[in-house]
Amino acid sequence: MGRLLINADMGESFGPWVMGLDEHVMPHVDLANVACGFHASDPHVIRKTVRLANAHGVKVGAHPSYPDLVGFGRRSIACSPDEVEDLVLYQIGALSGICQAEGGRLHYVKPHGALYNDMVQDRSLFEAVVKAVRDFDANLPLMTMAARDNTMEREVARQYGVTLWFEAFADRAYDADGRLVSRRTPGAVHEDPGTILAQALTIAKGEPLIAMDGSQLILEANTLCVHGDNSESIAAIRSIREAIQALGGSE
Amino acid sequence: MGRLLINADMGESFGPWVMGLDEHVMPHVDLANVACGFHASDPHVIRKTVRLANAHGVKVGAHPSYPDLVGFGRRSIACSPDEVEDLVLYQIGALSGICQAEGGRLHYVKPHGALYNDMVQDRSLFEAVVKAVRDFDANLPLMTMAARDNTMEREVARQYGVTLWFEAFADRAYDADGRLVSRRTPGAVHEDPGTILAQALTIAKGEPLIAMDGSQLILEANTLCVHGDNSESIAAIRSIREAIQALGGSE
Amino acid sequence: MGRLLINADMGESFGPWVMGLDEHVMPHVDLANVACGFHASDPHVIRKTVRLANAHGVKVGAHPSYPDLVGFGRRSIACSPDEVEDLVLYQIGALSGICQAEGGRLHYVKPHGALYNDMVQDRSLFEAVVKAVRDFDANLPLMTMAARDNTMEREVARQYGVTLWFEAFADRAYDADGRLVSRRTPGAVHEDPGTILAQALTIAKGEPLIAMDGSQLILEANTLCVHGDNSESIAAIRSIREAIQALGGSE
Amino acid sequence: MGRLLINADMGESFGPWVMGLDEHVMPHVDLANVACGFHASDPHVIRKTVRLANAHGVKVGAHPSYPDLVGFGRRSIACSPDEVEDLVLYQIGALSGICQAEGGRLHYVKPHGALYNDMVQDRSLFEAVVKAVRDFDANLPLMTMAARDNTMEREVARQYGVTLWFEAFADRAYDADGRLVSRRTPGAVHEDPGTILAQALTIAKGEPLIAMDGSQLILEANTLCVHGDNSESIAAIRSIREAIQALGGSE
Repeated sequence: MGRLLINADMGESFGPWVMGLDEHVMPHVDLANVACGFHASDPHVIRKTVRLANAHGVKVGAHPSYPDLVGFGRRSIACSPDEVEDLVLYQIGALSGICQAEGGRLHYVKPHGALYNDMVQDRSLFEAVVKAVRDFDANLPLMTMAARDNTMEREVARQYGVTLWFEAFADRAYDADGRLVSRRTPGAVHEDPGTILAQALTIAKGEPLIAMDGSQLILEANTLCVHGDNSESIAAIRSIREAIQALGGSE
Repeated sequence: MGRLLINADMGESFGPWVMGLDEHVMPHVDLANVACGFHASDPHVIRKTVRLANAHGVKVGAHPSYPDLVGFGRRSIACSPDEVEDLVLYQIGALSGICQAEGGRLHYVKPHGALYNDMVQDRSLFEAVVKAVRDFDANLPLMTMAARDNTMEREVARQYGVTLWFEAFADRAYDADGRLVSRRTPGAVHEDPGTILAQALTIAKGEPLIAMDGSQLILEANTLCVHGDNSESIAAIRSIREAIQALGGSE
Repeated sequence: MGRLLINADMGESFGPWVMGLDEHVMPHVDLANVACGFHASDPHVIRKTVRLANAHGVKVGAHPSYPDLVGFGRRSIACSPDEVEDLVLYQIGALSGICQAEGGRLHYVKPHGALYNDMVQDRSLFEAVVKAVRDFDANLPLMTMAARDNTMEREVARQYGVTLWFEAFADRAYDADGRLVSRRTPGAVHEDPGTILAQALTIAKGEPLIAMDGSQLILEANTLCVHGDNSESIAAIRSIREAIQALGGSE
Repeated sequence: MGRLLINADMGESFGPWVMGLDEHVMPHVDLANVACGFHASDPHVIRKTVRLANAHGVKVGAHPSYPDLVGFGRRSIACSPDEVEDLVLYQIGALSGICQAEGGRLHYVKPHGALYNDMVQDRSLFEAVVKAVRDFDANLPLMTMAARDNTMEREVARQYGVTLWFEAFADRAYDADGRLVSRRTPGAVHEDPGTILAQALTIAKGEPLIAMDGSQLILEANTLCVHGDNSESIAAIRSIREAIQALGGSE
């Protein structure tokens, strides 16, 4: 397992509406999850974001979603697996085309929001996403959430010959199953920069976290999700990245 | 110049709404212009259409449009050239991704409806479309309308290193400039199958048509646009194709 | 309880795509559930449909939906009750405005598709829909599905002072709870015109149906849902309506 | 002519994307032009905005647009007059329904962006908008731009029995025709607060402005358009309103 890579959601503006501080976050991440137009972004925003990623040597991933701009892809839509497969494929293609036009290539796929959550709750949806990735390019890794038990995800990925990248969170508490504690629960979100940095390093070293029930939890993570909404959180990303790089290890 | 190829718009259904007789038309054409989701089609329809084209050995082209489902891409939208470039690129990528997933590849690009018309009236729009094609894949031909004078189109295409495919119509009258006569003008649309077939053959042989003003008009066309909305028009497509094939010439 | 009224979904075309035989069905129904642009229809289609209803003295109802054109409103979207309340209100207003412009008025509200199903499974969603109706116009009846036990629906409607219209189906089998048997189950959909007519009359008379488990089921229905997709089904609607009218009873 | 009323565009957020400082601007205006979901806003944003307007005693107007979220309604779309009539009517109805649900009513209609500009360039479009307003409620005033010559607008409005409200701008230079000078021209937009305030007062008193060509220009305006994007512009709105109120005159 290589160095823990830092990923962040990017390209979440839409038409005249700006979201995120992409220009300030991009210099400090390894991977940019770029919205594909179904929950955010549009062709112009995508292209600008891909250029920005290229300028900073950041790898671009497709961040496909249920079709739901007004809900920002955060609401589950009862799509059939076939529908999910095709809409993920469409979005991967669109993003890949723009990467290609900008002289680069697409590096991975990370489903967004409700789709990201739903796919690990429903094997047929996970299979749909894996098939979309495999059909487009079997060498493209798929990012999914590291949990205590990723057996289902590993089985499906192996069956279709797709590589998984497991993602962990430094600013969120985990439950006994190694899933994120709901934001509505007190203590679900870490606010203290020291706590967040410590959790990032614990994950980076492959050491156990303490889950909400007090149990030890080792997450085999390839990448860490960060958010840069303001100058403080961007400073936090820098600290995390420097601390991880100080641990050594290659990408 | 090779044999005149037959192209038709395909994949124009959307969600629960069916349009066109794709299964009946596909066996009789060489090129399928597949809608990309901006004026018609959706990820599922696109995929089904690409599979159908593959099954019949028909080459798939992207048929990008202004973003206007309810208007079916027939209404001009005052997009900037940059906007056009990016939205064409997005649609090409999406369609190409689905072709790739189906084991084939995208073969050409033909803008749809109002965009098809607008780009030959405005050099900056034509340049935008050409750049989108070039940036995605400079080997992809761009289909545009054959007219008496295609100097602008040829200049722009040469500048960016993109190949043009010129398209002609067998069922429409041409004006003195070699542009289609507006549908509102009497005599603009040929209804008689014999007339249509004769015009197709005249174009295929590179012989002059007679424009509305009586002048002779030679269209250097690579491909002929056909529509198959009912059994009669599908029969007409078959006749045209057989007659063209009987002329000989390779693709 | 008055005469059982016949209702049908109308205005389900969208832009260039035609769905339904509205002109042929309209003469034979009492109530037209007009799509509001979120799962089907557009401003032009709505207006044309309202005019057609007016021409036949048919009462217009709003048929609001989750926002899902490509899925035709058939896919549940995990909207919050607040979101449902506001999107139903928006659609009611849009349709009411067009009724008003055409010299008539809106007569009732019937949620569509997945929303129609979800609201009776989740009291907070039902409450959201009822509040939208009440806030717009407390005199507007809300149509919902007649079942063995409509206690929840009646409680919520009473609380907010909204009238309910209960809807039954002549062409579908009912389960022990008085809910529709899933279409995937054999025998769920009646095909025989005689069976359909008989079930319509049983409902109209307030006599018991036989549910799938053999139990007797009395549905207190105000209205019967019909579909007119082809000439046979339109003939069936005529037969049903004539038979119901022959029973007597006023609207 | 009553006191010059202050109007501002409101409710321009969309889903997760925030635009504008509505809570800070609302206390200082008389009229709120609320986006209807076609270029900005969604059912939830509209309702929140209408509540905010009600809380401040601000009159709500519908701000309908071409259907173009990604382009924010700033791009002309070649809609037919019939299409414009119906899409304006739909948006008026939707907004009116939400006003009604909030215990108030809609007070006027002001088309947005490209539609606002296009309608005064094309009598058939202006007629379409006027007909939509008239068909919904002939007592609803329609806001349009004051220019040197508003003959066409007055003729059409008189023909259909609709009242016009003329709008002027304090921060923009006018050309000889009394139209706004294009933003691309140097001097088109006033930046100096003193200049803006002076122009507002000149308009409020019915005194002549000096157009770009040096000619005198009297604008018979009922309302002044303001924008509050930051604390400075909000302070400017307050100054303008206080100065106008100090002139006296009733609404």
